Amino acid sequence: MERKILLTECPDETGLIARITGICGRHSLNIIKNTEFVANQQRLFFMRTVLEGDFPESFPDEVRSALPQGASVRLMASRRKRLVIMVTREQHCLGDLLLKNYAGNVNFEIAAVIGNYDTLRELTEKFAIPFHLVSHEDLTREEHCRQIMKVIGQYEPDYIVLAKYMRILTPEFINAYPSRIINIHHSFLPAFIGARPYEQAYNRGVKIIGATAHFVTEHLDEGPIIEQDVIKVDHNYTAADMAEAGRDIERMVLDHALNYVMDDKVFIFGNRTVVFRN
Amino acid sequence: MERKILLTECPDETGLIARITGICGRHSLNIIKNTEFVANQQRLFFMRTVLEGDFPESFPDEVRSALPQGASVRLMASRRKRLVIMVTREQHCLGDLLLKNYAGNVNFEIAAVIGNYDTLRELTEKFAIPFHLVSHEDLTREEHCRQIMKVIGQYEPDYIVLAKYMRILTPEFINAYPSRIINIHHSFLPAFIGARPYEQAYNRGVKIIGATAHFVTEHLDEGPIIEQDVIKVDHNYTAADMAEAGRDIERMVLDHALNYVMDDKVFIFGNRTVVFRN
Amino acid sequence: MERKILLTECPDETGLIARITGICGRHSLNIIKNTEFVANQQRLFFMRTVLEGDFPESFPDEVRSALPQGASVRLMASRRKRLVIMVTREQHCLGDLLLKNYAGNVNFEIAAVIGNYDTLRELTEKFAIPFHLVSHEDLTREEHCRQIMKVIGQYEPDYIVLAKYMRILTPEFINAYPSRIINIHHSFLPAFIGARPYEQAYNRGVKIIGATAHFVTEHLDEGPIIEQDVIKVDHNYTAADMAEAGRDIERMVLDHALNYVMDDKVFIFGNRTVVFRN
Amino acid sequence: MERKILLTECPDETGLIARITGICGRHSLNIIKNTEFVANQQRLFFMRTVLEGDFPESFPDEVRSALPQGASVRLMASRRKRLVIMVTREQHCLGDLLLKNYAGNVNFEIAAVIGNYDTLRELTEKFAIPFHLVSHEDLTREEHCRQIMKVIGQYEPDYIVLAKYMRILTPEFINAYPSRIINIHHSFLPAFIGARPYEQAYNRGVKIIGATAHFVTEHLDEGPIIEQDVIKVDHNYTAADMAEAGRDIERMVLDHALNYVMDDKVFIFGNRTVVFRN
Repeated sequence: MERKILLTECPDETGLIARITGICGRHSLNIIKNTEFVANQQRLFFMRTVLEGDFPESFPDEVRSALPQGASVRLMASRRKRLVIMVTREQHCLGDLLLKNYAGNVNFEIAAVIGNYDTLRELTEKFAIPFHLVSHEDLTREEHCRQIMKVIGQYEPDYIVLAKYMRILTPEFINAYPSRIINIHHSFLPAFIGARPYEQAYNRGVKIIGATAHFVTEHLDEGPIIEQDVIKVDHNYTAADMAEAGRDIERMVLDHALNYVMDDKVFIFGNRTVVFRN
Repeated sequence: MERKILLTECPDETGLIARITGICGRHSLNIIKNTEFVANQQRLFFMRTVLEGDFPESFPDEVRSALPQGASVRLMASRRKRLVIMVTREQHCLGDLLLKNYAGNVNFEIAAVIGNYDTLRELTEKFAIPFHLVSHEDLTREEHCRQIMKVIGQYEPDYIVLAKYMRILTPEFINAYPSRIINIHHSFLPAFIGARPYEQAYNRGVKIIGATAHFVTEHLDEGPIIEQDVIKVDHNYTAADMAEAGRDIERMVLDHALNYVMDDKVFIFGNRTVVFRN
Repeated sequence: MERKILLTECPDETGLIARITGICGRHSLNIIKNTEFVANQQRLFFMRTVLEGDFPESFPDEVRSALPQGASVRLMASRRKRLVIMVTREQHCLGDLLLKNYAGNVNFEIAAVIGNYDTLRELTEKFAIPFHLVSHEDLTREEHCRQIMKVIGQYEPDYIVLAKYMRILTPEFINAYPSRIINIHHSFLPAFIGARPYEQAYNRGVKIIGATAHFVTEHLDEGPIIEQDVIKVDHNYTAADMAEAGRDIERMVLDHALNYVMDDKVFIFGNRTVVFRN
Repeated sequence: MERKILLTECPDETGLIARITGICGRHSLNIIKNTEFVANQQRLFFMRTVLEGDFPESFPDEVRSALPQGASVRLMASRRKRLVIMVTREQHCLGDLLLKNYAGNVNFEIAAVIGNYDTLRELTEKFAIPFHLVSHEDLTREEHCRQIMKVIGQYEPDYIVLAKYMRILTPEFINAYPSRIINIHHSFLPAFIGARPYEQAYNRGVKIIGATAHFVTEHLDEGPIIEQDVIKVDHNYTAADMAEAGRDIERMVLDHALNYVMDDKVFIFGNRTVVFRN
């Protein structure tokens, strides 16, 4: 007996839940948890079903053939996702991920860390994770990204996590991993797009600062948002204090976003996400 | 074509979702929204299904007969719930409810307000809602509660809301409206049970204060919790400042709890609730 | 014996606190609360001192002469500020202010309400507050604003509160009440500047929505921010649901901002504020 | 030129701020930041003054002699506080502290970690911090605590941090480090005092869970609270899920509390704290 997750996505019409759960029932698959959402404006149906039982090989196809044309049906095995982490010099997000990976009670494993500086090698190697320096110096952005892709290639990760990787990626890179690159941005997007968000925040005199985890698309800082959160600040905060206070919220937002993605709780449609938090 | 809400609650077993949604499908009832929860420890299944279509009279019975012994099946019409509000002297929760009732974009209507003081008559009557003074003076608690019950009786409310009603109710009263009395308590229960929670909070030197909306049972402050929230305080707050700051959170927690209950999103089991917030 | 608030603002230099509190001491003025802030980058000093005692007429001048050139020294009497509220058609912020004004335990009094529609007359007049309809129809923006200014003139308010007033004001209007117009904007600025922020938020797929209370300057939505807050949303929220959920946060943010301003806890410098929350 | 922090605490009377800041001025000490609080009910005055300049040796005595009988005056040098961390088996709080200590941008340094199990030795030693196993097995509580005290003695820490140390300490231990032991408790105290707070929380059906950092006194879970925070949960959370979700809030609350204490921002009086967060 296995536990698997069925992810269904198709144009909405009457009777979808009954059809899908009916097929589950015919194979005596027990529904542990079922969550659905209909995007009314877009007439789209999304469902995540946690199932337990013996899965016949034909099961996903049976489900697919019961659904409207163009349905996406995925049956996900329960296994830890493999991650490659990309970093620059800040340690707080990476450190948090390394600790959680070490503790082992998470649904991912870190295959490798890639940095464009060597700063975080020592920390990474403390946890016996391979660290690859791929310096951007003397390289065009295209060459640099291609070198990183070569390193990534040897690890076959499910997802690439930009844990404060501070450089812009090429379209070639981004398109090589569609919906598989997750970034943590240090502002509550769409406020303060681009560089130095904390300085922008300080200059605007805001009373809250935040962080946003999102999938990376070709449009900088405009990919589908997975999770956001904020904390309150006041006039006592300099831009540097905001950056310091923001670290906690950055790693927490990234942590939550990864939880959702690793548990196959996130659907992407257009520039939006459905996140079944429970 | 109507919109109704099907509430199902029964011992958990395999195939429940398929059976229920199958019956919906056979009657061409469109599922607008479906939310389910299985309490694993207690082996209980809960489901809330928003349906649209033409409902045959036999529909709830059909569902019931497809479910295990002891299933509870309720088909709720989409209509505003009727409320009787009970108050003492504080206006913030009542005022908020009166405003929302007046605006009309809520899922309840206030049938009447009952006070054990006359303080809030003027405010209530501004909104053309009947106000009944039922003073507790010179009455035993039993007599007082019975007089209130008599007033309530003429309004046949769906729910009774204690919007800062500061007296203890008799078991007779409470048992007359099982799972239909909602109270707002001015602490994050179970902290500071009983009287003067803000003074208790001040004396303990806490850094957060809160509010709890719960169903009223015979056990004071121990009924099933519907919603809770908190705000941060610090050493600058006296007990009176905490009470003042607490008012916002009290009315917001009560407001959210009522939203959930009025939309038939809340199940009670034992001393706990299932709240389908979406 | 009176209670007054001394507000000091000047270029920073050594010894300011000692000088100011020394003068207070010489007049046996008891310091109930003292809060100070130095904006290091701008080299500016701000202090708010709550004093009790008998104030000689010369007191503010004495303080001023002890401070560097260009110091601003204000001695505020403890009295309720007078407000004129401007509205369009939404009632939630106005309703909240009317209730608080009626309860009387706030530091403001509402002198009048001005609407560009007649929608909120009934609600306003329930509380015996004068309501003025100043329709914008068939008027240029300049003429409309001048008519409003004429109405405002007869009330001599301390502050003008835009409680969901949905039209743009002329520079002439804004400059007539410098630092005295407070607006509630329905987004966490600087995200979603301009019209229909909830639709913008929905389209961007954000996971938090917010509200911002700020002073109005000639630059639309760019005035000094007094207070901001957010709530979490998810894929279940349509733009309309976000607007509905946003109402609570709008009125709470406005409420907090007014508290601070009415208690003389807010300094403006450049496009920023110092808010002594305690 | 040095930076130091002056902490003053005495019975309240008129003129205290002027006297203290006057003495600072006479020695040309520049006030970088001044925060004061008067506990009216208890008639106590607290002030924290960040000063820059050349401090004459007599400075604290001068201040003391200007204040009422019984004043406490402390002049704190700007230096990192030394910590000894005590743990049992859970790694999330310790891991976070080790990472921050490693990053080095905090106001403490970890001198050693003491565990009553060996579980966290590996993690600790990764960061080149000494780990001491002091097993409680076959020892009375008194003997165990004394052995720990002996280890602590060799490090002369400023504070002892119980980072999920799950055993009760003896009065002898506690009294050896008055106001110098900081504990993180996994509930929003005073709710769920004692063992297994998450199970208690689950059984009560609460909708929020929290964490509390407090100074340890002889009265279990009743010492002065430094910081508290909560997160929302719902019916989907088992007791184990709550514990998991609680970890984030535990380490964040502990982190904030340590920030405040290490920066000398916390005063204790009776069973309460004054925390100058800014």
